[in-house]
Amino acid sequence: MNPAATESVELLIEARWVIPVHPAGLALADHSVAVRDGRIVALLPTAEARQALRPQQTVQLDTHVLLPGLVNTHTHAAMSLFRGYADDMPLMRWLQEKIWPAEMEHVSEDFVYDGTRLACAEMLLGGITCANEMYFFPGAAARAFLESGLRASVGIIALEFPSRYASSADDYLARGLAVRDRFRDEPSLGFCLAPHAPYTVSNRTFERIAGLAEELDLPVHLHVHETAEEIRQSLAEHGVRPLERLRQLGLVSPRLIAVHAVHLEEAEIDLLSREGASAVHCPSSNLKLASGLARMERLRSRGVNVALGTDGAASNNRLDLLGEMRLAALLAKGVSGSPEALPAHAAIAAATLNGARALGLEAQIGSIEAGKAADLVAVDLGTLPLAPCYDPASHLVYAAERSNVTEVWVGGIHRVSGGRLAGDVFEGLESKVCMWQNRLV
Amino acid sequence: MNPAATESVELLIEARWVIPVHPAGLALADHSVAVRDGRIVALLPTAEARQALRPQQTVQLDTHVLLPGLVNTHTHAAMSLFRGYADDMPLMRWLQEKIWPAEMEHVSEDFVYDGTRLACAEMLLGGITCANEMYFFPGAAARAFLESGLRASVGIIALEFPSRYASSADDYLARGLAVRDRFRDEPSLGFCLAPHAPYTVSNRTFERIAGLAEELDLPVHLHVHETAEEIRQSLAEHGVRPLERLRQLGLVSPRLIAVHAVHLEEAEIDLLSREGASAVHCPSSNLKLASGLARMERLRSRGVNVALGTDGAASNNRLDLLGEMRLAALLAKGVSGSPEALPAHAAIAAATLNGARALGLEAQIGSIEAGKAADLVAVDLGTLPLAPCYDPASHLVYAAERSNVTEVWVGGIHRVSGGRLAGDVFEGLESKVCMWQNRLV
Repeated sequence: MNPAATESVELLIEARWVIPVHPAGLALADHSVAVRDGRIVALLPTAEARQALRPQQTVQLDTHVLLPGLVNTHTHAAMSLFRGYADDMPLMRWLQEKIWPAEMEHVSEDFVYDGTRLACAEMLLGGITCANEMYFFPGAAARAFLESGLRASVGIIALEFPSRYASSADDYLARGLAVRDRFRDEPSLGFCLAPHAPYTVSNRTFERIAGLAEELDLPVHLHVHETAEEIRQSLAEHGVRPLERLRQLGLVSPRLIAVHAVHLEEAEIDLLSREGASAVHCPSSNLKLASGLARMERLRSRGVNVALGTDGAASNNRLDLLGEMRLAALLAKGVSGSPEALPAHAAIAAATLNGARALGLEAQIGSIEAGKAADLVAVDLGTLPLAPCYDPASHLVYAAERSNVTEVWVGGIHRVSGGRLAGDVFEGLESKVCMWQNRLV
Repeated sequence: MNPAATESVELLIEARWVIPVHPAGLALADHSVAVRDGRIVALLPTAEARQALRPQQTVQLDTHVLLPGLVNTHTHAAMSLFRGYADDMPLMRWLQEKIWPAEMEHVSEDFVYDGTRLACAEMLLGGITCANEMYFFPGAAARAFLESGLRASVGIIALEFPSRYASSADDYLARGLAVRDRFRDEPSLGFCLAPHAPYTVSNRTFERIAGLAEELDLPVHLHVHETAEEIRQSLAEHGVRPLERLRQLGLVSPRLIAVHAVHLEEAEIDLLSREGASAVHCPSSNLKLASGLARMERLRSRGVNVALGTDGAASNNRLDLLGEMRLAALLAKGVSGSPEALPAHAAIAAATLNGARALGLEAQIGSIEAGKAADLVAVDLGTLPLAPCYDPASHLVYAAERSNVTEVWVGGIHRVSGGRLAGDVFEGLESKVCMWQNRLV
C-alpha cells in the first residue's frame, strides 16, 4: 500500500499484458486496469498504478493477457441441451427428423431456463461476457442470463409458425415485447428484434418489425443468406434474393445484424457496407452444416462490421468464442487465399468490439477504456503448451484455448476465478441437465 | 478382488465408454481394457472384467471415453520453439524473412533436443502418443522422444540445401541413416525416409531414396502438392506436376506418406488410391498459410488412407491433434458441401488407425485390440461444457478439446495422470524454453 496514493479503487488487475482492442493493435506489457462501481476507471502501466491508486483488492496476473470480455453475437443458448443430439446429417433431415420434433416435444419455459443456464456456465468459463440470444421463451432466457451474471441482448423472436411458445407472428412479438417491458430496468439486459429468417417471416411481419425497430430503437437480429437453398427459395417466392427483400422492407440499416451472411454477391456486400449493417460470422456452424464458406475477409475489407458468433450448441457443438476466433482467423486465410487475412488483432476485435458495435453497445463494452463496464477476461499464456510466447495477440488467437481462461469479470463482478465458476450461481444445474438428458434420449 | 478371478493383469482401465476404432463405428459402454507387459490383453465389458481378471492396479474412469492414442502423422516437433514467432505473413516472406534466418542462426543439436521435448510435453498432454517427425538433427529428436516416452517415427531428412546440420543431400542421408543405426534397438522408435519436398530434392536424391526405401523397408514421408505455386514451379522445371515426377521416380507406393496433398486432380487422387499411398491432412496449417482447401473427403471416398497431422507449431500454432480432428471434420463438410462428410467415427479413425497404417504400424498401434501396444487416451466427457452427452463419438470430435484429456498411457506407461504430466521426465524444460525465447527475441 502506498501512503502517497490518492485515488481509491475497488479492484486493481495487474496483468502481464493488456490488449485494450481500442486503440487497435496494442498489446501493452505490464499494465493494470482499475475498477470502481463495476466500471473501468483507468488503464495504466502497473508501476504507475501502484503509485497512484489505493485498491481494496489487487489481482496479480503475471503470465496472463487481459482483454475485454468476449461478445458472442449469435447464439441459441438453450439449445445447449441438444448438444450432440444429432450430427453428420443433411440439414433438412437434421431439422425435420431430430431438432424440430425434439423442440416440439421438450422446449418449454423450464427447458429454456435450464438450457440457458447451462450455456451461461459454458460461456463464462470460456470468457464470453455478453451474448446475443435468439430462441423461444425469451423471458426464461432473460431470467437465466440475469441470474448467471452474463450480459445479454435477448431476442424478441418472431416467426410465422406456431410453437409451444406462441401461436402467430403477432403473438411472438407481443410476448417478446412483454418480456422487454418486464426486464427493461435491468442494466445488464438489452433486447433485439429477432425475426428468425427471411424464409420463416412474412413481409407483413417484417414491416411491423421495421416499424418497431425505429420506434423502440432496437437492433434487428436475423439469419440471412445462410444457405444457397434459402436464396433459391426467395427468388422463386419473392422474385428477389433475401437481402434485397429486406432492403425493400426497410430493414437494411445500421440496426441490421445479419447472421451467417455466407452467400453474398459483391453488390450485397456493398449494400451492407453502405448502410452500416453488421454481419455475424459463425464459422463452426457454417462448416458443420455445410452451409458454405463465408467470405468474411471480403466483407471486412469493404468496411462491413464483422462480429463472431457460436450459433447454438446443436450445430457447433461448443459455445467457445475463443475457438471461433481462431477458426475465423484461419478460415479467412484459407478462403481468401491470403495468409494476411484477418490478422490476430483484427480477429480479437471481431470477437469483442465489433460485437458490441453490432448490438449498439459500443459505448458500454467491447474494449478496455475508462468509463466502459468492467467486462474483462484473463487468459493464462504461461502454460507449457503455450511456451514460448513472442506475441500475446498471436498466442491469444492461434495458440490459446478456452481452457486457458482463468478469470472473468462482468460489470466488475468476479464470475470465473482460477478457471472455475465463482459463487453458487450454478448450484443444482448438473442435476437439471441430467434430467433433460434422460428425457431426451 | 474376486477370489474366482483367474488371469492376472497389471492394469485394468474401467471406462464409461471405449471407442476401439477397429472394429469401426463402435462406442462400447462400460467396457474395460486390460494391460500386461505394455500390451492390451483384453477389451471386455467391465462387469466381465471384474469377474475374470485380477489386476494389480485399477483405474476407474466413470465419465470418460477411452480411445487409442492419437497419431500425429506430420510434425516438425522442434519448431515448437518458433511458436508464434511470426504470423499473418505471406508464405515466402514468412520463410525468407523470419523462419529460415532464425533456423540458420539457432537450430542446433540442443535446439532440436529442447524443442522436441517441449513438443512431446504438449503432445502427451493432448493425447498424442505417436508422432511422425521431420526436422534437422533427427538424432537429437530421437533422444527427446525416447526420454519423453512418446512413440515416434523419426524422419531421415534429406534436401539439397546445406544447413547447420548437413552439407548435401548425401550428407543428410548418411547422418540420418547413422541415427537409425544408433537407435535401431529401441522398440518405441521407428524411421521414415523424409525427403523434404519435390521442390527441395533432386531426381538423383529421390532415386537414392526410392532404393533405400525398398532396401530398408521404410516409409517415405514428404510434403507434396501443398501449394499451387509448387505445382507451377514443377511444371516449369520438370515438365510434369510433382506427383507425376514422384511416380516416374518410383516413389508412389504404399510406402508414400504424402503430406498436405492440397492441390490434386482427379487422376492424382486415383493414383494415390490405386497405389495404396497415404495422405496426411494438416487442416490448421493449410488454412493458416493459405495453402488452399484440401479435398480430404474426396480422397477418403476414393479409398485413400487419410491421416491427420498438426504440422509444426510455427504454422499452426498448436500440436493439438484432437483440435485437428474437429477442424478436419468441420472443414470436410464445408469444402465438400455435404454435412455427412467425415462423420465422427471416421474422423477418429483418421486421427488414430489411419496414421498407424501410414507409418506401417497398424499391427502395433492405432486401435484398442488385444495384442496391440497399450497406447491409450482417456477424455473426460463429464464436465459442464460437455453436458449433456448423447453420443461419446460425436462429443469427442465436435465438443471435447484437449484440455479434457486426463490420462495417457504409452506402451502401458502412465504418461499423463489427472491432466498433468506424470513423473519428472520434463524437469528443467521450462527454463530451457525460456532461454531459447530470450535468444530468439
